[in-house]
Amino acid sequence: MKDPAAIVKMIERLKNLKTRDMYLNDFFHTWKESDDELSATFAVAEIFRALRENNISAKVFDSGLGISIFRDNSTRTRFSFASACNMLGLEVQDLDEKVSQIAHGETVRETANMVSFMADVIGIRDDMYIGKGHTYMKEVASAVQEGYDDGVLEQRPTLVNLQCDIDHPTQTMADMLHVINHFGGVENLKGKKVAMTWAYSPSYGKPLSVPQGIIGLFTRFGMDVVLAHPEGYNVMGDIEDIALSQAKASGGSYMRVNSMSDAFKDADIVYPKSWAPFAVMEERTTLVEQGKFDDLKDLEKRCLLNNAKYKDWECTEELMATTKQGKALYMHCLPADISGLSCKQGEVSASVFDRYRVPLYKQASYKPYIIAAMIFLSKFRDPAKKLDELLTAGVKRIK
Amino acid sequence: MKDPAAIVKMIERLKNLKTRDMYLNDFFHTWKESDDELSATFAVAEIFRALRENNISAKVFDSGLGISIFRDNSTRTRFSFASACNMLGLEVQDLDEKVSQIAHGETVRETANMVSFMADVIGIRDDMYIGKGHTYMKEVASAVQEGYDDGVLEQRPTLVNLQCDIDHPTQTMADMLHVINHFGGVENLKGKKVAMTWAYSPSYGKPLSVPQGIIGLFTRFGMDVVLAHPEGYNVMGDIEDIALSQAKASGGSYMRVNSMSDAFKDADIVYPKSWAPFAVMEERTTLVEQGKFDDLKDLEKRCLLNNAKYKDWECTEELMATTKQGKALYMHCLPADISGLSCKQGEVSASVFDRYRVPLYKQASYKPYIIAAMIFLSKFRDPAKKLDELLTAGVKRIK
Amino acid sequence: MKDPAAIVKMIERLKNLKTRDMYLNDFFHTWKESDDELSATFAVAEIFRALRENNISAKVFDSGLGISIFRDNSTRTRFSFASACNMLGLEVQDLDEKVSQIAHGETVRETANMVSFMADVIGIRDDMYIGKGHTYMKEVASAVQEGYDDGVLEQRPTLVNLQCDIDHPTQTMADMLHVINHFGGVENLKGKKVAMTWAYSPSYGKPLSVPQGIIGLFTRFGMDVVLAHPEGYNVMGDIEDIALSQAKASGGSYMRVNSMSDAFKDADIVYPKSWAPFAVMEERTTLVEQGKFDDLKDLEKRCLLNNAKYKDWECTEELMATTKQGKALYMHCLPADISGLSCKQGEVSASVFDRYRVPLYKQASYKPYIIAAMIFLSKFRDPAKKLDELLTAGVKRIK
Repeated sequence: MKDPAAIVKMIERLKNLKTRDMYLNDFFHTWKESDDELSATFAVAEIFRALRENNISAKVFDSGLGISIFRDNSTRTRFSFASACNMLGLEVQDLDEKVSQIAHGETVRETANMVSFMADVIGIRDDMYIGKGHTYMKEVASAVQEGYDDGVLEQRPTLVNLQCDIDHPTQTMADMLHVINHFGGVENLKGKKVAMTWAYSPSYGKPLSVPQGIIGLFTRFGMDVVLAHPEGYNVMGDIEDIALSQAKASGGSYMRVNSMSDAFKDADIVYPKSWAPFAVMEERTTLVEQGKFDDLKDLEKRCLLNNAKYKDWECTEELMATTKQGKALYMHCLPADISGLSCKQGEVSASVFDRYRVPLYKQASYKPYIIAAMIFLSKFRDPAKKLDELLTAGVKRIK
Repeated sequence: MKDPAAIVKMIERLKNLKTRDMYLNDFFHTWKESDDELSATFAVAEIFRALRENNISAKVFDSGLGISIFRDNSTRTRFSFASACNMLGLEVQDLDEKVSQIAHGETVRETANMVSFMADVIGIRDDMYIGKGHTYMKEVASAVQEGYDDGVLEQRPTLVNLQCDIDHPTQTMADMLHVINHFGGVENLKGKKVAMTWAYSPSYGKPLSVPQGIIGLFTRFGMDVVLAHPEGYNVMGDIEDIALSQAKASGGSYMRVNSMSDAFKDADIVYPKSWAPFAVMEERTTLVEQGKFDDLKDLEKRCLLNNAKYKDWECTEELMATTKQGKALYMHCLPADISGLSCKQGEVSASVFDRYRVPLYKQASYKPYIIAAMIFLSKFRDPAKKLDELLTAGVKRIK
Repeated sequence: MKDPAAIVKMIERLKNLKTRDMYLNDFFHTWKESDDELSATFAVAEIFRALRENNISAKVFDSGLGISIFRDNSTRTRFSFASACNMLGLEVQDLDEKVSQIAHGETVRETANMVSFMADVIGIRDDMYIGKGHTYMKEVASAVQEGYDDGVLEQRPTLVNLQCDIDHPTQTMADMLHVINHFGGVENLKGKKVAMTWAYSPSYGKPLSVPQGIIGLFTRFGMDVVLAHPEGYNVMGDIEDIALSQAKASGGSYMRVNSMSDAFKDADIVYPKSWAPFAVMEERTTLVEQGKFDDLKDLEKRCLLNNAKYKDWECTEELMATTKQGKALYMHCLPADISGLSCKQGEVSASVFDRYRVPLYKQASYKPYIIAAMIFLSKFRDPAKKLDELLTAGVKRIK
C-alpha cells in the first residue's frame, strides 16, 4: 500500500507530463494520444488507487451525470464505468438503446443533446459493426460540441470509448498498467516478447477491438509484439500499419505469424483470445444494414465451421511451458472460454486459467481507475494541482 | 452568461412572488397554479441555470430519492427528471411498471407507500389513457399524504406531473420559458399570435396533453392563441373552456379553426404536432379496459386511414413563409416526424426542421431546470432565502 | 418523534452491546447473530429513523457502491435496499442476471469480483431454489474475501441477505421491530402468542423463507410461537429444530399444528401467509437443474390442485375474532393475496386487510432502516461513536 508521502511523489512526477490537450477532449484510440498523455493516464489511475487505499475521497464533482450507452452487452465495463463515475461524484444514467439498431445522422445528434443537459461524460460501447462504432462516437462527440457551442448545453460532456469496432482503450490501458506493475516498471518492458494470439472459441463474431487495441498500444513500449492467428483471421490493416511504425519508433518490433506455438515460444506475455476475421465482420455489417437475416445465419454457420478447423489453437499447459522459463504472464479481458468449464473446448485450458486467476482479476481491477483517470484528465486543466488539493483536503471516503 | 450580481437581482425579484402554496404541494396542471407560482417557477429555473453556468452547486439535498414512474416510453423527460434530481442532490430510482397496466385503488395506495419511505419527490408519466393518468397521479398523491399522516412515511414526497392525459406541464413550462427568452421578456408577449396546430403523422394515438397544455398555458400571457385541427380532432372541451376564460382575463384571445394555413397566417409562433382525436382516445381507453384487443387493432386501422386524409397538414417552407415576416418561431416537443428523414411524410419538412434545430434543442434544454424548480418550490418555504444561501456558499459544482 | 436528547440516550444504550463480530462481516441468518447483535441492529435502525425525523444526515460514505443482485422479482425490498444505501451515501448499481439461471462455482467467483472493485455492500435476493440461494451467497462472500485477500479489491464488500431459500432476515427483523414498538418494548413480548400460519393462495411456489425466518427469530423473545399448516406443507426441519431450542432457551415455546383455528385461538400476533411445501420446492429445484420443464408444469398443476383443498385457510373476521380480545396484530410481508380484491379467494379477507392497512405499512417501513443498520454495523468498529459524530455534526439532510 502506498502512503500519502508516496502519493505526493506520484503527483510530482505527473507535473512533468503535458496533458493540456486532454483537457475538454475525448478519448477514442490510444494511438491518438501522446506518450505523455498515456503516462499521465497511468499515473492518475495509480494515484486514484492509492487515494482509495488511504480512504481519501476523490470526489471532484458535487453533482453531474455520467451517461452510459451500451450498444452491446457488458458487465465488467459497465461496472467499471459506474465505479469510476461514482468515485468522482457523477451519477450514472444509462441510455438504453436497442442493441441491434445502427443509429446515425440527425437522430444521433438529437439524442446526444437531449441526454446531455447535465452530462459531464458519456461512455459508449459500440463494437459490433465494422465502420460503425467509432463513427457513431465521433457523431456523438461532434453533436455535443455543437450543442455546447450553440448554448444548448451548459457544459460539453467528454467522451470515453468503452469499446468500438477499432479500439478498446479502457481495456488495453488497464492491461498495460497491469503489465507495468507486473514487471516492476515501464522501464523494464523493453525487449519483452508479447504474444497476442487468436484462440478457438465455440462462439462466433467476437469483436476485433482487443487484438487491435493490444498491438496498437503494446508496440509503443519497445516490446516485441507478435500477432498470431490462422490464415484469414486478419485484423484491420490500418492498425497493423500503426503497430509496425510504433514498434520501430519505440525500438521494439511487430510481426504477424500463423502459428500459436511460434508466438508462444519464449514469450513474456501471452494474450490468447478469440475474434472474428475482419472480412467476416465487414460482411456481417453489410448484411445487417441490408436486413438480410437469413444470410446472416448462413454467415454464422460458415464462420463456426471455419473456426472449428482451429480447435487446437488453445492455450494449454504444454504451450505455456514453451514460454520464457515457462512463466509467461497469461492475460485475458474476461470472460474467457475455458475448456471443460464454461465450454467443451475453448480458448484456454482450465488448469492454466485457474493458475492465473488472481493476476487476471488484478488485471481487470485497473479498469475503473483507468476510466476515472480518462474522465479526470478531460476535466481538469491542471490535474496535478487538483490531485494535490484532494490529498491535502484528505476528506475520508468512509467517514 | 449571467454573473453572480445578476443572480442576486433575479433572487430579489423572486422575493416579490407568493409561493407559499407550492410548499409541500404537487404540480399537476399549470392552470391550477397562480400567476405568481408560474413566474416563480420560471424565475427559479433561470436562477438554477445561471448557478450552473457559474459552476455553483444547487445541491439542497444531502441524500434522498426521486422516484420516477414512467407508464409510457420516454427519453428526454426521463433524462430531464434525472438531471433535475441529480442537480438537487436526489438519486433517481425507477419504478418499472408494466407499461400496459392500468393500476388503481388499493394497489396504487400500497405501491405508492412502499417506494416512498425515503422519497422526496415522485415524477410520473401516465399519458396513454383518457381519464386515467391524472386520476392515477391524484391517487398516488393522496396515498402518500395518508402515509405521511399515519406516520408510515417520514416525509411526504411531492408529485411532479411528467405528462398525464390532460396536461404536460414540464414540457409547456419549458416551452414558455423558451418563448419568453426568445422574445426578450414576458412583457413582450402581449398580442403575439400562437398557432398550436395538428400535423400529419404516420403513427397513431399520440397523446393530447401537449396541445391541451399549450392552450391551457399560453392563453395566460395576453397572446392570440389559435388551435387548428381537422374536423373531429378535438381536444378536451374543458381545457378549451379554460383557455377561453384565461385568454379573456389576460387580454388575449383563443379560437379554434379547421385550417392550418389560417392558423399560420401572420403567426409569431407555430407549434405543429400530431395528436389523436379525443373521441378516439376515449374509445381506446374503454377497449383496453374491456380487454378487446381485436377491436383495438380495428380502431387503430380506422384512425390511421382517417389521418391519411390530412397528409397536407405539414409544416412546409411555403406555410412558414406566410407567418409574421416569414420568421415565426417553430416549436416542437420532440421527437418530430420529419418528412423524408424519420418518415416518408410527417409533421414537418426536413428543411424547416433543420433550420430550427438549435432553437428546438434550446427549447428542450429548459426542461431539467423547470423540473428542478418545481421540486425546489415544493420543498422550501422560503425559496429566495435558500437560493441566497446557495449563492453565498458558492460551493463549486466541479471542484 | 424523538428529539436529539432521546437519540443521545439511544446511542448510550447501544454502547452496552457487543457488535465487534459484525464488523466486516455478513448478515445471512438471524440465528447466526447473538442477542446483542440483534439488539444492536434494532437500536441502530431506530436511531437512523430518529435522525431522519430530525432531518439529520446519516451519510457515512462520501462515495461507494451498493450492488444489488435480485434473482427473483422484488419491489419493496429493492426500494428498501436502495433507500438504505442512499441514506448512507452509497449508490446502488444493479447486477441484472437472468432470473432463471442457477449460477455457481467459478462464474460466481469471477462475477463477484468484477462488480466489486468499488463496492462496499452487496445485497442479494435468491430465494427460488432450495439449497441454492444461501449457497450462492456464501460463494459470493468467500469470492470477495479472496479478492480482498489477494489485493484485487481495495475493500471487502459485506453481504446482506435480501432473502434466500432459508431466511429473510431484513423482513423478519423489520417485522420484529414493528412488534416491539407495537407492544411498547421488547420486555413486553414474553408469553405473547404468535401464530405463523399457512394461508391459501391461488398462486404456487411462494418461498419458505418468511415462515422459516419468523419461527427462527420470534422464538428468541420468550414468545409462544405456533406454526400452523395443512399436512404436507412442512418447512425445513433444521429450522424447526432451531426454533425449538431457541424457544426453550428464551422461556417461550414452539409447536406445530395442522389447524389454522387452533393457531389463531387467543393469539396476540397472527401472520397468515402462503408457501409451498418444502418437498415441492426441493423437487422443483431438481427439475430446473435437470431442465425438465414439462415435469415442472406438471408439478405446478399438482401443487395448485393440492393447495385448492385448503381454501378455507383464510384469515377471516371470524378467525380474527377468536384471537386475544379479538385484537391480534395482523402481519404480512406484502403483497398479500386479498380475497375479492387482488384475487377471487386468497390469504386474507378484504375487511381484515383493510383494517390493518396502516400497521402493515408501518411494518414495511422499518425495512430500509433495518438494512441500513445491517450495513452500518458491518462497516464501523465502533458504531455508537460514529452515530455520536453524526448527531453532533448535525448535517441537515434537507439543507
